[in-house]
Amino acid sequence: MEHTLRLVISCPDRVGIVARVSQYVAEQGGWLTEANYHADAESNWFFMRNEIRAASLTHGVDAFCEGFKEIAGSYDMEWQLVDSNIKRKVVILASHASHCIADILHRWHSGELDCDIPCVISNHENLRSMVEWHGIPFEYVPVTPETKVEAQLKIMRLTLAAQADCVVLARYMQIIPPEFCQAFPGRMINIHHSFLPSFIGANPYQKAFDRGVKLIGATSHYVTETLDEGPIIEQDVIRVNHRHSKDDMVRLGKDVEKAVLARALRNHLEDRVLVHGNKTVVFD
Amino acid sequence: MEHTLRLVISCPDRVGIVARVSQYVAEQGGWLTEANYHADAESNWFFMRNEIRAASLTHGVDAFCEGFKEIAGSYDMEWQLVDSNIKRKVVILASHASHCIADILHRWHSGELDCDIPCVISNHENLRSMVEWHGIPFEYVPVTPETKVEAQLKIMRLTLAAQADCVVLARYMQIIPPEFCQAFPGRMINIHHSFLPSFIGANPYQKAFDRGVKLIGATSHYVTETLDEGPIIEQDVIRVNHRHSKDDMVRLGKDVEKAVLARALRNHLEDRVLVHGNKTVVFD
Amino acid sequence: MEHTLRLVISCPDRVGIVARVSQYVAEQGGWLTEANYHADAESNWFFMRNEIRAASLTHGVDAFCEGFKEIAGSYDMEWQLVDSNIKRKVVILASHASHCIADILHRWHSGELDCDIPCVISNHENLRSMVEWHGIPFEYVPVTPETKVEAQLKIMRLTLAAQADCVVLARYMQIIPPEFCQAFPGRMINIHHSFLPSFIGANPYQKAFDRGVKLIGATSHYVTETLDEGPIIEQDVIRVNHRHSKDDMVRLGKDVEKAVLARALRNHLEDRVLVHGNKTVVFD
Amino acid sequence: MEHTLRLVISCPDRVGIVARVSQYVAEQGGWLTEANYHADAESNWFFMRNEIRAASLTHGVDAFCEGFKEIAGSYDMEWQLVDSNIKRKVVILASHASHCIADILHRWHSGELDCDIPCVISNHENLRSMVEWHGIPFEYVPVTPETKVEAQLKIMRLTLAAQADCVVLARYMQIIPPEFCQAFPGRMINIHHSFLPSFIGANPYQKAFDRGVKLIGATSHYVTETLDEGPIIEQDVIRVNHRHSKDDMVRLGKDVEKAVLARALRNHLEDRVLVHGNKTVVFD
Repeated sequence: MEHTLRLVISCPDRVGIVARVSQYVAEQGGWLTEANYHADAESNWFFMRNEIRAASLTHGVDAFCEGFKEIAGSYDMEWQLVDSNIKRKVVILASHASHCIADILHRWHSGELDCDIPCVISNHENLRSMVEWHGIPFEYVPVTPETKVEAQLKIMRLTLAAQADCVVLARYMQIIPPEFCQAFPGRMINIHHSFLPSFIGANPYQKAFDRGVKLIGATSHYVTETLDEGPIIEQDVIRVNHRHSKDDMVRLGKDVEKAVLARALRNHLEDRVLVHGNKTVVFD
Repeated sequence: MEHTLRLVISCPDRVGIVARVSQYVAEQGGWLTEANYHADAESNWFFMRNEIRAASLTHGVDAFCEGFKEIAGSYDMEWQLVDSNIKRKVVILASHASHCIADILHRWHSGELDCDIPCVISNHENLRSMVEWHGIPFEYVPVTPETKVEAQLKIMRLTLAAQADCVVLARYMQIIPPEFCQAFPGRMINIHHSFLPSFIGANPYQKAFDRGVKLIGATSHYVTETLDEGPIIEQDVIRVNHRHSKDDMVRLGKDVEKAVLARALRNHLEDRVLVHGNKTVVFD
Repeated sequence: MEHTLRLVISCPDRVGIVARVSQYVAEQGGWLTEANYHADAESNWFFMRNEIRAASLTHGVDAFCEGFKEIAGSYDMEWQLVDSNIKRKVVILASHASHCIADILHRWHSGELDCDIPCVISNHENLRSMVEWHGIPFEYVPVTPETKVEAQLKIMRLTLAAQADCVVLARYMQIIPPEFCQAFPGRMINIHHSFLPSFIGANPYQKAFDRGVKLIGATSHYVTETLDEGPIIEQDVIRVNHRHSKDDMVRLGKDVEKAVLARALRNHLEDRVLVHGNKTVVFD
Repeated sequence: MEHTLRLVISCPDRVGIVARVSQYVAEQGGWLTEANYHADAESNWFFMRNEIRAASLTHGVDAFCEGFKEIAGSYDMEWQLVDSNIKRKVVILASHASHCIADILHRWHSGELDCDIPCVISNHENLRSMVEWHGIPFEYVPVTPETKVEAQLKIMRLTLAAQADCVVLARYMQIIPPEFCQAFPGRMINIHHSFLPSFIGANPYQKAFDRGVKLIGATSHYVTETLDEGPIIEQDVIRVNHRHSKDDMVRLGKDVEKAVLARALRNHLEDRVLVHGNKTVVFD
């Protein structure tokens, strides 16, 4: 992959932002390989993502940042300049189900997901061998009603010790304590096995089966303190009919879950997802 | 279209139903052009739809029915034999929006929907000319807070006077009184402009926009006394993203609404939809 | 709809184009409601579409254009500034089939397609009443083997007399002579009833049926002199299976055709489609 | 999974087949868990698949088969009775690409594909570790221009030695010699990385990119002696646009390829795919 810098910006909308930013990028010799803008009319907010060839910056990255601070200040920007050569650390939390994690690990192994995976943490042992085959440490943290709080603390400590930039809940079926959510705002990604906001909470396939829906879905979203209500990153659906039992729905749903989670994670890792309020802008 | 008879059956499941029915059909000389079966494991219920060439019945339709009664009795069947030559009477209720009704009328006009449309009833005048161009009487029944009950009664009387077999709510935005629902069980079809059970009730596109979903949908269902909770016949979705305003969603959603309603209505008219509890079997 | 100006540009790619253009827009007081950019790595070509609030330009449109000429010149730009208040004239050519034209006319009638339709030209009389109900002149130009050339000339003359900006072939089943194609480069839109490049030419549904494909599709493209080989604007598909006869495919395909053509036409009318070589950039 | 017997039949269509077969099944005490029928009007051919609870047969499987022979004879049936407890042996041929085989192996490992995999054969070594981790023998058969014929013979011998019921070409990029195709009629499954019949042969993503299509696809089909022209089992597509490079198409296409191949293989293993001429009936 080419070495690029991603300049990601959000700020109140007003005339001339694109001009000011792109003029600065040009002054610095920056060659744009991709540029995306979005002005949200409702909230009057502006979003921007520029991908710049690292080698094209005449004075280097530090000088670029130094100079950009002034622009950022005068436009009240939230911004970051991400170096594509610095890999994010993604800690994965899993439970018993293997489909999402197997899919992520294979994509990572074949170079499709540009990140490091310092460890996988699970409350079951069954995935150990698969994870370790990929050369990734596997941390087993059993969760019982008695040890729940302790286990949660341990998982959080392991995640922080791994210096995680991002946490992926790959069908991790346990509740995440608020302080853990707060430690990873817009950086903890869940896959929920329904087309949210339908079928929030437990057993969504059973609920979908009982309601007799003709499509089932999956939703990847950032985790917030309110269960299944965080900003949605990606969703998809698959057609079902009266011949499908609840077990068929579970099976068919797996394919949607893993595809949706993979797309969400890849877009997150490429800094294509900007959170604003409880919604996302996804520059894919 | 070929002249056929549709033998539609539902009953408690047990061994030998297919054998008994198809043996009888064969004895009567019946040539099956299509046959569908479904055994619902959960409720232990059996569903069957046979399409038989009318001309192939050696002793005619009446003899067929007479003889079938015995079988039906011994298996506790709900059943009907529908003659494809007898067109259903479909009364359409509409409001101001034109997309669903324009789509239905064009399909009907070009021979894609096999039914009669004795009248269209609306609480707005704006669709009169379009409806009348198709040679269909247009009944204007204004609804105001003061005249609401009266208007509802008038609409129901007009529908009954038209000897409707089926009522279609083509984005008719008024509440249907319980007695009207009860008069058309499994024969009143609504199109709701969301992917149910998400966004029940009013303003689903606004709710979808506010939630930041990545797909919007539409649902066609039989009307029951509980708003937007009847048996689902058909659903579909379309992809949206951060660039779409609520008005864009309304516009894009129209295409999904009209396609979903048309598919539901066509399947209903061909006796492909069997209701069981709050779910449907759709032999499409 | 808001009054906007669409600045549409394509030129060889180099550093600083976005900066130069957006700086100029900002200098002129231009408030961007939407901005899209694409750099094609393969051909090293740059594409840009800016939508600007007309009222925001401090010195008006003429001054804007005058000043922009210099920039355009120094970057070798092909460009245009389109006023959203000036409606394009769209001449529609149709044959016997009604689904595409009925769909376009309804969208136009309900305000979804922002254009004028000076006339519909057809080699059949059957659509006259529908077209005239919409208040649009209907020109009947029969085509027989003997009168073919003459008829083609007449159709071309009628189109030019109507001062068409754009020609839509709404399932017009006749060959378009080269000089007619050449008169409307990138402005004549066809809908082909297959997923191109599969099933070029006549009877695509029969060919799809014979090949046993599991999806059928439709393709909207700009017409060039080579049949069914022009730049593709939009495509979509629908699932079929062994139960579908060729006639079912024709029926199901209609819904795809009309949706695909409507999306292509809308994007064309909003200047969202940029042609480069035999491909399109679609800023939707 | 429940122990069932699958009675799969195809024969010339005539009145009374369903009656005769289902009467016989009922006489034998057979409890149908699923039944599918299709009469192809074009070829006047009849297709049937009955899934019967093994335990329900009063006189056992052998007696069932013995008695059925007579019916089969009198209706000119091709038929088989497949025992769901006897696992098919599936030999997988792979090349360098890992996505399809990783997906199949994970589905197999998690119990979603009901078969044995006696070995994976590849002309590259890179997948050995992944395959062996699953406990499956990996056979490396390098193919060079000089050793091509020898290598093909070796692969065929290995496949026959493994007593393969079915061969899966999981992005195996080598030509299959005619005698190998002939040895597995309707039992050798390929995944082609385009929406056939578009882009037959090599480099379909490059061709799709060059043509500027707006959807890319994948096709799973039975292998015949004519390249990419065998009966299609399953197809699917994914949307692309001008922002996608050829490499993006390759990446996105992988997800379609593996999903399409998995669905085709699963349906094949459950005896849901019936070949007739160059088309398939898929009772899914």
